[in-house]
Amino acid sequence: MDQPVALLFDVFGTVVDWRSAVISEGRAIAPELDWGRLADVWRGHYAPTLRRVVAGELPWAPLDELQRQMLDTTLTELGIGGLAETQRATLSRVWERLDPWPDVPASLARLKERHIICPLSNGSMRELVGIARRGHLPWDAIFSTELFHTFKPDPRTYLGAAQLLQLAPAQVMMVAAHPLDLRAAAALGLQTALVPRPLEWGPAMKVEPSAPGEFTMQAATFVELADQLASGR
Amino acid sequence: MDQPVALLFDVFGTVVDWRSAVISEGRAIAPELDWGRLADVWRGHYAPTLRRVVAGELPWAPLDELQRQMLDTTLTELGIGGLAETQRATLSRVWERLDPWPDVPASLARLKERHIICPLSNGSMRELVGIARRGHLPWDAIFSTELFHTFKPDPRTYLGAAQLLQLAPAQVMMVAAHPLDLRAAAALGLQTALVPRPLEWGPAMKVEPSAPGEFTMQAATFVELADQLASGR
Repeated sequence: MDQPVALLFDVFGTVVDWRSAVISEGRAIAPELDWGRLADVWRGHYAPTLRRVVAGELPWAPLDELQRQMLDTTLTELGIGGLAETQRATLSRVWERLDPWPDVPASLARLKERHIICPLSNGSMRELVGIARRGHLPWDAIFSTELFHTFKPDPRTYLGAAQLLQLAPAQVMMVAAHPLDLRAAAALGLQTALVPRPLEWGPAMKVEPSAPGEFTMQAATFVELADQLASGR
Repeated sequence: MDQPVALLFDVFGTVVDWRSAVISEGRAIAPELDWGRLADVWRGHYAPTLRRVVAGELPWAPLDELQRQMLDTTLTELGIGGLAETQRATLSRVWERLDPWPDVPASLARLKERHIICPLSNGSMRELVGIARRGHLPWDAIFSTELFHTFKPDPRTYLGAAQLLQLAPAQVMMVAAHPLDLRAAAALGLQTALVPRPLEWGPAMKVEPSAPGEFTMQAATFVELADQLASGR
């Protein structure tokens, strides 16, 4: 298969470590709460909620707004009543203040030498700009699924990004820690690279199963991904 | 007025020197032709054509396609029949291979320290990504009017970019060499900065007139713009 012209990156979990940031900002607000559990329950609402939007059961809204609603739901479910409105508003914006995994920034700079590199994320443009500025991520452009008023794994997101770059699906490689994301991209003809992030869910080590050889490439880190692409494997 | 959170930049003429690139690539293809004149006639079709799209008289298409049509029209008008299809196809893509004015790259890096910086250009995403990669322009995100299926000065382009950043119009400053672009932005409540580029049209020195004090700021170069913003003027 030809080398991909562009690489599209999933962000939450793949490029950035959301769980550590939620725990760290949460502890600063209310040290007595179990922020690991809260982060997991909050993030647990993410996939089902977005699936309902893609299925047309919920109206689309930028992810910031949905994150705020999911945070309120989480706090209610866990019986946490003590957070003030301003604390909830600030915390719901933590998704624009996430730090990259340590292998990311230098690897992206290296990948950019030979490929167009862009996120393709369900985060809002605002969240993705915030993350890129904070982590000094050298993206060529930023594709939020907000541009298409839907979320991954809606086919319009993968095809929409390829179309904006005027590339055929096969000239584009989706990079993600999540097999579901990659399977949706592969079904449309994109190349795929799995970079598992076993620490995404902290000590729980929740990793979605995938078959060996299921994707175009598999790499343990972005360094290894850059090595594989450079060697033409 | 408060400092702008984000700066949006016009690109063709303001950030990059389109005329020198058309002349240089043209001469490499057909040294005998008057490429200065050809560049000016070609670019002369730009504003009227885009105005017709904004007015609904022509269907929207990415700028790449319109540039190709305008090139063919230009060659016919000038009685130039000798360019092969592949030469026309290559030349019509020159708009993704433009170099920045010399004051641009370092000034953008400096402006990025305190402001979100993005192009807001009628160039396609592909053209703008190409220009950014070639010139090492450190944009935070890329806004092509392609995202809104229209062109500046349609209000939806300025308001659409502000909305994607979740900013109010007054938190955003449009930076351009062209008063018409800035007047459209100002009418919607954006701040404005005029950076005239007297060499945009080469020796013809065509500069649109504007009144002193008409815009929030006026600067001779991007260096001066960064100085003025840093000093809070």
